[in-house]
Amino acid sequence: MSDRNIRLESAEKRAVEDQEVEIVERKGIGHPDSICDGIAESVSRELSNLYLERVGKVLHYNTDETQLVAGTAAPKFGGGEIIEPIYLLIVGRATKEYDGEKLPVDSAALRAARDYLRENIPELDVGTDVIVDVKLGEGSGDLQDVFGEETEEVPMANDTSFGVGHAPLTETEQIVLEAEHALNGARYGDDHPELGTDIKIMGKREGDVIDVTVAAAMIDQHLDDVDDYIEAVESVREFVTELASEYTDREVNVDVNTADDFDDESYYLTTSGTSAEMGDDGSVGRGNRANGLITPNRPMSMEASSGKNPVNHIGKIYNLLSTHIAETVVAEVDGIRDLQVRLLSQIGRPIDEPHVADAKVITEDGVTVADIEDDVVAIVDRELADVTEITRRTIKGELTTF
Amino acid sequence: MSDRNIRLESAEKRAVEDQEVEIVERKGIGHPDSICDGIAESVSRELSNLYLERVGKVLHYNTDETQLVAGTAAPKFGGGEIIEPIYLLIVGRATKEYDGEKLPVDSAALRAARDYLRENIPELDVGTDVIVDVKLGEGSGDLQDVFGEETEEVPMANDTSFGVGHAPLTETEQIVLEAEHALNGARYGDDHPELGTDIKIMGKREGDVIDVTVAAAMIDQHLDDVDDYIEAVESVREFVTELASEYTDREVNVDVNTADDFDDESYYLTTSGTSAEMGDDGSVGRGNRANGLITPNRPMSMEASSGKNPVNHIGKIYNLLSTHIAETVVAEVDGIRDLQVRLLSQIGRPIDEPHVADAKVITEDGVTVADIEDDVVAIVDRELADVTEITRRTIKGELTTF
Amino acid sequence: MSDRNIRLESAEKRAVEDQEVEIVERKGIGHPDSICDGIAESVSRELSNLYLERVGKVLHYNTDETQLVAGTAAPKFGGGEIIEPIYLLIVGRATKEYDGEKLPVDSAALRAARDYLRENIPELDVGTDVIVDVKLGEGSGDLQDVFGEETEEVPMANDTSFGVGHAPLTETEQIVLEAEHALNGARYGDDHPELGTDIKIMGKREGDVIDVTVAAAMIDQHLDDVDDYIEAVESVREFVTELASEYTDREVNVDVNTADDFDDESYYLTTSGTSAEMGDDGSVGRGNRANGLITPNRPMSMEASSGKNPVNHIGKIYNLLSTHIAETVVAEVDGIRDLQVRLLSQIGRPIDEPHVADAKVITEDGVTVADIEDDVVAIVDRELADVTEITRRTIKGELTTF
Amino acid sequence: MSDRNIRLESAEKRAVEDQEVEIVERKGIGHPDSICDGIAESVSRELSNLYLERVGKVLHYNTDETQLVAGTAAPKFGGGEIIEPIYLLIVGRATKEYDGEKLPVDSAALRAARDYLRENIPELDVGTDVIVDVKLGEGSGDLQDVFGEETEEVPMANDTSFGVGHAPLTETEQIVLEAEHALNGARYGDDHPELGTDIKIMGKREGDVIDVTVAAAMIDQHLDDVDDYIEAVESVREFVTELASEYTDREVNVDVNTADDFDDESYYLTTSGTSAEMGDDGSVGRGNRANGLITPNRPMSMEASSGKNPVNHIGKIYNLLSTHIAETVVAEVDGIRDLQVRLLSQIGRPIDEPHVADAKVITEDGVTVADIEDDVVAIVDRELADVTEITRRTIKGELTTF
Repeated sequence: MSDRNIRLESAEKRAVEDQEVEIVERKGIGHPDSICDGIAESVSRELSNLYLERVGKVLHYNTDETQLVAGTAAPKFGGGEIIEPIYLLIVGRATKEYDGEKLPVDSAALRAARDYLRENIPELDVGTDVIVDVKLGEGSGDLQDVFGEETEEVPMANDTSFGVGHAPLTETEQIVLEAEHALNGARYGDDHPELGTDIKIMGKREGDVIDVTVAAAMIDQHLDDVDDYIEAVESVREFVTELASEYTDREVNVDVNTADDFDDESYYLTTSGTSAEMGDDGSVGRGNRANGLITPNRPMSMEASSGKNPVNHIGKIYNLLSTHIAETVVAEVDGIRDLQVRLLSQIGRPIDEPHVADAKVITEDGVTVADIEDDVVAIVDRELADVTEITRRTIKGELTTF
Repeated sequence: MSDRNIRLESAEKRAVEDQEVEIVERKGIGHPDSICDGIAESVSRELSNLYLERVGKVLHYNTDETQLVAGTAAPKFGGGEIIEPIYLLIVGRATKEYDGEKLPVDSAALRAARDYLRENIPELDVGTDVIVDVKLGEGSGDLQDVFGEETEEVPMANDTSFGVGHAPLTETEQIVLEAEHALNGARYGDDHPELGTDIKIMGKREGDVIDVTVAAAMIDQHLDDVDDYIEAVESVREFVTELASEYTDREVNVDVNTADDFDDESYYLTTSGTSAEMGDDGSVGRGNRANGLITPNRPMSMEASSGKNPVNHIGKIYNLLSTHIAETVVAEVDGIRDLQVRLLSQIGRPIDEPHVADAKVITEDGVTVADIEDDVVAIVDRELADVTEITRRTIKGELTTF
Repeated sequence: MSDRNIRLESAEKRAVEDQEVEIVERKGIGHPDSICDGIAESVSRELSNLYLERVGKVLHYNTDETQLVAGTAAPKFGGGEIIEPIYLLIVGRATKEYDGEKLPVDSAALRAARDYLRENIPELDVGTDVIVDVKLGEGSGDLQDVFGEETEEVPMANDTSFGVGHAPLTETEQIVLEAEHALNGARYGDDHPELGTDIKIMGKREGDVIDVTVAAAMIDQHLDDVDDYIEAVESVREFVTELASEYTDREVNVDVNTADDFDDESYYLTTSGTSAEMGDDGSVGRGNRANGLITPNRPMSMEASSGKNPVNHIGKIYNLLSTHIAETVVAEVDGIRDLQVRLLSQIGRPIDEPHVADAKVITEDGVTVADIEDDVVAIVDRELADVTEITRRTIKGELTTF
Repeated sequence: MSDRNIRLESAEKRAVEDQEVEIVERKGIGHPDSICDGIAESVSRELSNLYLERVGKVLHYNTDETQLVAGTAAPKFGGGEIIEPIYLLIVGRATKEYDGEKLPVDSAALRAARDYLRENIPELDVGTDVIVDVKLGEGSGDLQDVFGEETEEVPMANDTSFGVGHAPLTETEQIVLEAEHALNGARYGDDHPELGTDIKIMGKREGDVIDVTVAAAMIDQHLDDVDDYIEAVESVREFVTELASEYTDREVNVDVNTADDFDDESYYLTTSGTSAEMGDDGSVGRGNRANGLITPNRPMSMEASSGKNPVNHIGKIYNLLSTHIAETVVAEVDGIRDLQVRLLSQIGRPIDEPHVADAKVITEDGVTVADIEDDVVAIVDRELADVTEITRRTIKGELTTF
C-alpha cells in the first residue's frame, strides 16, 4: 500500500437512486455545446499527436474554448437549405515553434475540426454550411517551460483543482445516456436518417415515475410532410420507451418534441439535424460533464474537460480519473449502491499523489464500509499509480470527455 | 397559501459547514471568464433597456456566449505594454426589427461592452488593448413569437430547466467571496493600484483548518522592482488573513501567488491586471455560479446565467430566484443551519408555478423541520408569486449573475 | 445608323508599339490579387445564377471586395507545409430576401469560392490551408429597387462612369499575356507540376529590345533539391524565350526569379505555388485590368471589374464592352495600328446610349481615318446595341475580368 | 551632372488641357475607399515611427490592405442612428520582434486607425459605429533581412516597378481637387456641419464646357426636414460653382446629388456623413492616385501607395517622387504646358538611380524642348539625389498618398 492520502467514508445520505426527486440531462452530439466539446477535444487529440510525432512529447497547449455562432436556415419538408453558415471559432493556446522548427498547429486544428464534423455531423457541408476559423495564441513563456520533461514521467500538478466521479449510474442516468447513444448510433440511426444528431434528453424521476423528455431535431429532406414528421416523432417515443424498459422496472413516460405547435405549423424541423443551423449558439464546457451527463443531484466539477491538455491539465485528468476509478471500484467490488470519488490536487506534487483522494460510499443493505474498505482503497491506489494511462487513452481517443 | 407544489424536507446529511472537506472558488471580476460573464450580462441589460425604451417590452434575445481570445503582453517592472490585443466576440441572438423599425442591437451591445470594460477593467484601453467584435443573429421565428405578451404578465416556462440556491454561506464561502469583493473594491483597491482585477481565490477547508489560495495579477507600472512585488504580495496575504478572521475562528492559512518562481524571475506580473492579456482565454458560464461562487460541495446548475434574457429564460430566473429565496428564508427564519432551494420548471406553465419547489433543510440543534415548515413554505410561496421582481431587478442591474 | 453619340478621331500620337519605352505587366491566376479577382468574379457569377434560378432575374448585389490575408508556410525541397492558413474574407452586398423567400447568398458565395480555388489553385486545401469567411450585407433600400425590371430590357446607367478598351495588343503585351496563359495552362503546366500558379510577368520594351521578367513560384514537393529548382527555373526561361519568338522578331531577353540569392539559400520556393501562403496579401481590383494586363502606356480605368454586378454596374460593363468593341473593330477592319475605345455613361439613360463613345485610332501607313470611319462607327453602334450580350456572357463565365 | 539615365522628350500629343474630352474624379476623405487609404497610410506612419523610436530604423512592413465592410444605418431627418457597425480589417505584414524585443505593432496599428478616424471622420464613434480589427502577419524571412541597413543610406530597389507624375493640373483637375478640399476643410465645413465627409466629385470637360458632378452625403442630425436638405444641396452647388470660377473661365455646370428621387423620398441622407455606414464597402488603392485624383486621360500607376513602406517600397516612392518632380519642374521652369515624369526602377540598384527617368513635355507656344532641357534635367537629377527626403516627409505625414 502506498502512502497516498486516500480516504473512504460513508456518504451519510441516501443514494441518488433512493432520493425523492432526481434530474438528469444529456445533450446529444449534435447539440451546439456538444459540437464545441467534440471539436475542442478532437483538436486537442490532433495537437497531442502532432507534437508526439514531431518532437516526441506533448508540448504546451489548451484548446478548450471553441465558440459556435449559429447560422440561419430555411428548413422545409422535402428538403430546405442553410442560408447563412454556422461560424465556428477555435480558440486556445499552442506551442508554435520548437527547437527552431515551426509546427503547423493552426492547420492541424482546422483539419481536426473538419474531420470531426464530417464524421459526426455529416449533414453539415464544411466550407459552405460551416465556416471554421481559428485563433490560437502562444502560451506564456513560463507555461511552455513546464513541459520540458518527457511524457513518460508523472508530471507535477500545475494548479489546485479537483475532479469528481460517480458510479454506478442510476436507472434514470442510464436511460438518458443510453437513449442518446442508441438514437445517435447504429441501433436507431441506421434505419432513421430523418433523425438529426441534435438530441437533448432530460430525465426526471419523482419517486418511481420517470419522465423522459426528448427534444430531437428532425431532418427535412427525409420527411415529405407533417404526417411523416409525426410518425418520426412517434417512432422516437416508442424506441425510447422500449429502451428504457431495459434499464428499469419503474413507470416511464416519454415525451418527444413537446414544444411543437401543430396549429402554428411550428415543428422541430431542421435541414442539418442540429439547432446550430438556426439560432442556437454553443461553446465548450457548457454541457455534459466528463461522464456524459449533467447531474444536478451529484457534485459536479465546473471544469471544461474537452480541449484541455491531457498531459498536465490536472482538472481534466482528475475528472476522467475519478470517473474511471469510481467505475472500476464498482465493477470489481460488490455491495456498493453509490460511490463518489473526489481527487484534489496539490500544486507542485506529482499528479499521482493527490492532496486528498476522498471516496464516499453508500453500501447496499448488509454490507458495511469496513467490509469493503481495503479493496476500495487498493483499487484507488492502483489506479492513481497508473494515472498516465488516462493521458495515453485520452490522446488515443478512447476516453470521452462529454 | 397557494397551491404551488412546494416541498420542505430534511436534507438527511451534514451541513456543508460540518463536512470534513470543503472546497470553494471564486474568479474575480478581471478573470477572463468573469470578464465574459460581466460583458454578457451588461449586454443583456442594455438590450432589455433598449427594447423597453423603444417598444415598451423586452423582445427575444440571448447574449450568453461572449468569447474572449487572450492577447499578448510584455509586462515589466515600471510599466510594460500589450503587444497583441485581446479579442472579444459578443455572440448571441437578438430581435433586430420590430413593427418595421430597425433596432440598433449591435451598436447597443458594443456600447455596453465598452462601458463595462471602462468601468470595471479600466487598465484596458478599449480599441487598442481590446478589440470588441459582435455577431448577433436573429432568433428563430418561433421564439420571437413567444414574446408577444407584455412583460407585466408572468410568462410561461419555455423549457424544462431548474435552478438551485443555498443559504447561509459557510465561513469558507464567505471568506472567499468577501475577500475578492474587498480586494477588488474600495476597501483594499483604493490604496493599492498595483493589484489587478484578475484575482482567483480558492478556499479549502479540512476539518477546522482553512487554506486560502489567492492568485492575484499585479500591475507592472505601479511596481518598480521585485521588492515592490514581494511587498504587494505580502500585503494581499496580510489583508486576506485579517479579513478571514472577521468570518471565522478557525485556523486560516493564506497563500498568494504560489506559482511564482523567484529563481526563474517568473512572477504574476501583468500590464493590465488580467491574465487575459497573455494566454488565458475566457467564455461565459465557465466560472462563478449565480451566487458568485463555485461550490463543488453543493449541487450546482450548469446554466450560464449571464447574458440570458431575464424575462423568459427559466434557467436564469430560477437560479437567481432560488438563491434569493434561500437567502430570504434564512434571513427571516431562525434555526436553519443549511438550506437548499431547488426550482424545477414545467414547459407551458407560468413560471411562478414551478413543477416542484423543493427545499432541503438542515436545522440547528433543538429545532425540527416541523418547527419551521409553515414559515419556510409561506416565504417560498410569497417569493414565487413575486417572480417578476427578479426580472425587474436584473434589468436594473441590482442582481449579479456571477 | 443610330443617333448614338459615337466619335472617331485620330489619336495624334504614336502607337504604343512605336513608342520608345513600353511597360506591361500581368499577375498570374495564383497571384494574391488575382486570387481575389477570381473569387470575387466567381461569387458574382454564382449569385447571378442563383437569382436567375430562384426569381427569374438578377437582383442587386456587388461582391467586388474579397480580401486575402496571407498565411505562413514552411516550404522545403521534397515537400513542406502550410503553418498558418490563408484567410479569405468575401465582402459585398447582396439581396437576401425576395418576395418573402430567403436566398442563400452566403452559402452560395462560400461554395463559389471553394469551387474556384479547387479548380484553379488545387494545391491549396480549402478548409485547412485556406479559411474562407464571408460578410455580405444588404444593400441600401434604394438600390434594391433599381433592379425591379426584367433583365431582358436595357437597364439605365446608375452612375457616371467610363470604360476603356484597346486593340490590337502590342507584341510585348501579347508575350506577357500569352506566356502566363501558357505557363499556367496545359501547354506548359501539364508536364511541369513544379510550377506554381503565382506567376508575375513584367515586359519592358526599350526600342527594339524586350526584357521579360518572370517571377514564378515553384512548388517544393516536386523538387528534390536546388539542382531541380535551377532546372525548373531554366525550363521556364527557355519556354518563355521560345514562346516570345512566336510574337516578335525583336530581341527578347528573359529573366526568371531574379531575386533568388543562392548564397543565402533564398529561392522562390513555396508549398502551394502561391506567395499568398507566406507574406503576400491580396485584394480585388489591384491587379490586371479587364483585358488581363496592366498597361501604364495606355489609359486605364481604376474600376475593379471583378465581382461587380454585370447587369447594371456600368463601370464593369463599359470596361468589358469597350475592350470587346476595340477587338471586334480591329478584327473586322483592316488598316488599324492602334485603337482606343472609351465609353462614358450618363446617369439615367439606357446603357446602350452612352454619353460619348469616343474612339481614337492610329491608322497604318496608307490608310486614313476617313477610309475606315464608316465601318468603325457601324461596328461600335452595332455592339452598343447588343450591350446586354456582355451581361449574358459574363454570367456564363465566357468573359474574363482580370 | 550625374550619370543618371534621364530623358526628356516631346510628348507628341496634345496637352490634356487641350484634348477634346477630359474626365477627372476625386473620392473625398469620407469615401469608403479613401477611409481605407487614410487608415492604411496612418498605420504605416505609426509603424515607421514606432520602429524609429524603438530600434532606430524602419523595419520591414507593408500595411496596404485595409478592408472596410459597410454597416447598416437608419438615417432620418433630425438624427438617425447606425444599426450595425462598420467593420474595418487592417491587413498587412510587420516585423513583430527585433533583437529579442517584442514590438507592439498590432496595438500601434489599432491606435493609428482610431486616431485617424477620430480626427477625420469624427461623426463615427469608434467602438460602436466602427469595429476595428487587425491581422498583421510576419513577412517572409528574406524580406526582413533586406532592411538590415540604416535608413540614412539609399536603399536598393527590391522590385521592378514604376511611378508616374504630372504637372501642372488642368483646370478641371484643379476644380475637382480644390472643391473637395474646400468642402471638407475649414472654408466650407466650418459653417456647414450638415455636410458629410463622403464627397465624390467627378469633372467632365467637353471642349470648353465643364460639368462637375458632386455626390455629397448629408448628415441627418443637422437637417430637420427635406427643405433643409434641399437648401444644403443648393448651398454646395453654389459654393462649388463659385469656387470653380476661381480656376477657369470656361462654362461650368455643377450638379449635386443627382441620384436623389424626391418622389420616392430617396435622398443622400446619412447619419455619419459616409456611405460606409450603409452599403458601400471600401479598400485600399481603389480610389485616388498619389496626386489625389483619378485621371483616365493620363497614364496612371495601379500601385496602391497608401500603407506601403516608405523606406523601400519602390512603387510608392517613385509615385510620390515623380509627382513631386513634375510639380517642382513646373514651378521652377517657365514655358511648360504639360509634363509627365515616369521613373522605372531596376532591381538591385540604388533607388536614386532609376533604370530610366523619362520626362515627356509639351511646351507652351514659343518654347522648345531644347530651350528648357538643361534646366529640367538638372532638377530631375537633383530631386532624384534627394530621394530619401520623400521617405522622411512621408513618415512625417507631410506628403499625402491619396
